[in-house]
Amino acid sequence: MSVDFQSWTNTHIAHFETVLAGLLPPAEVAPQRLHQAMRYAVLQGGKRVRPLLTFAAAELVGAELPRAQYAAASVELIHAYSLVHDDMPCMDDDVLRRGKPTCHVQYDEATALLVGDSLQTLAFQLLAEHRLSDDASRQLAMIKLLAAASGSRGMAGGQAIDLASVGKSLSVPELEFMHIHKTGALIRAAILLGAHCGNATDAQLSRLNHFGKCVGLAFQVVDDVLDAEADTATLGKTAGKDADHDKPTYVTLLGVQAARGMARQLHQDALESLAEFGGAARRLRELADFIVLRKY
Amino acid sequence: MSVDFQSWTNTHIAHFETVLAGLLPPAEVAPQRLHQAMRYAVLQGGKRVRPLLTFAAAELVGAELPRAQYAAASVELIHAYSLVHDDMPCMDDDVLRRGKPTCHVQYDEATALLVGDSLQTLAFQLLAEHRLSDDASRQLAMIKLLAAASGSRGMAGGQAIDLASVGKSLSVPELEFMHIHKTGALIRAAILLGAHCGNATDAQLSRLNHFGKCVGLAFQVVDDVLDAEADTATLGKTAGKDADHDKPTYVTLLGVQAARGMARQLHQDALESLAEFGGAARRLRELADFIVLRKY
Repeated sequence: MSVDFQSWTNTHIAHFETVLAGLLPPAEVAPQRLHQAMRYAVLQGGKRVRPLLTFAAAELVGAELPRAQYAAASVELIHAYSLVHDDMPCMDDDVLRRGKPTCHVQYDEATALLVGDSLQTLAFQLLAEHRLSDDASRQLAMIKLLAAASGSRGMAGGQAIDLASVGKSLSVPELEFMHIHKTGALIRAAILLGAHCGNATDAQLSRLNHFGKCVGLAFQVVDDVLDAEADTATLGKTAGKDADHDKPTYVTLLGVQAARGMARQLHQDALESLAEFGGAARRLRELADFIVLRKY
Repeated sequence: MSVDFQSWTNTHIAHFETVLAGLLPPAEVAPQRLHQAMRYAVLQGGKRVRPLLTFAAAELVGAELPRAQYAAASVELIHAYSLVHDDMPCMDDDVLRRGKPTCHVQYDEATALLVGDSLQTLAFQLLAEHRLSDDASRQLAMIKLLAAASGSRGMAGGQAIDLASVGKSLSVPELEFMHIHKTGALIRAAILLGAHCGNATDAQLSRLNHFGKCVGLAFQVVDDVLDAEADTATLGKTAGKDADHDKPTYVTLLGVQAARGMARQLHQDALESLAEFGGAARRLRELADFIVLRKY
């Protein structure tokens, strides 16, 4: 456990990329173009923040790594599907993602639509077909958890609220409501699924849920600050697009300084919710630091 | 059991519509527009063929009706999501569905995209959060079954093959491969999930799987014949669109007469696979008759 954070991250991500590549349908299996596009959408790198949170929560409770990898993959597939659909012309109309053409630009819109659909399906398939817990009932609860976090009262609902908010002035609580759904729900699910892999108790899950809520919101606040400040090259996606699209953000509502202050406060709250875990929560603490202090 | 087919169908559909309405998020819960659109996409009627197949298979093995209703709802939500996405401009670009404006016409494209996404999520949520079997492991197998039937190697994959086939000349086996995925997989899943609700044996599942394969293909062949012959008013959707879109169909490949003959043969095969079930398979037989002999 004396491995530093960067090594821990690199090792997990490298291994996870191999796992993901093996879980996605092979590009040579029919329908080839769809399978190629699914792989294009998922295997383009990215920060893999959600899988790392899953691994850190799994480590905290001593879960077996292979189980955590399936959980992490399912969350990452949901995240990847949402990016593919959100980038489409009828949504955010983005042409660049992680420095490369978005899926509908590289392929076509119909393929991108099916890629998103199929990645979502695969996420649930992974949670159902691999053993993630000795208790099948707990595994059903994990599937329910991911579904609730992703659906119309979770991530997809947050995206709907986001779309409806374009050009409107939201209050800070309304903006928070949107982000708790749009990005927060899946981040929380990533953490809780990792903990479930190691038979976490309700008390542990409750603390981790609070941690996830703080970290998820902090993630978004920092995103808004970065979007307002960074340039496109550093960000790997089109910078300044929130302002261009007339979308309310923490920066437009609070200003950059207050938004930074809010991120710091959330960071503190997140760390406090880990206090009782002691040293076992080291990786979660480091990830919270990374999320708040990152520059891209 | 002396209830005639029409009464059996009417009773089950009426009850199922109430169940579906209760399982969908209320229209007044945020995000309201998304939830309204989800209800619009699902509660517009339709033949409910897949749910009826689920109920008939459930009856065959003596499953409890409430369990079968969750299974039927999950399949119908997957079907509804696929229709919403398939109708979008980047796919089939259809403006009419069951005699009413399609979801993206009634609402907008972004909402339709999220409606399809959220309906898919809800389908898996239903299978995970309600008790469908006394054996949680069997329930995980049911989720896997639905996912495999819906994903890139099932329904969504069939749609990808369909898109790729526009303007091309397919062979009959290639067309069959497409339809076994695009419509057949979900029809088979509807039947098998119903049977799983009553602890069906592997031997029973195997026979029902064959039945489902024949009926699923027959369904598509009859669809092609109806599309080539019927007018828009009878069909409740835009007639003749397959020919307009230069899509290969059983009618364009075989001609109407041979396509009708193929449907008859599949009908026979389907009925034969039910022989060992005796009288318990009555509703499945009646549904096979309905699917092949329907005029809309």
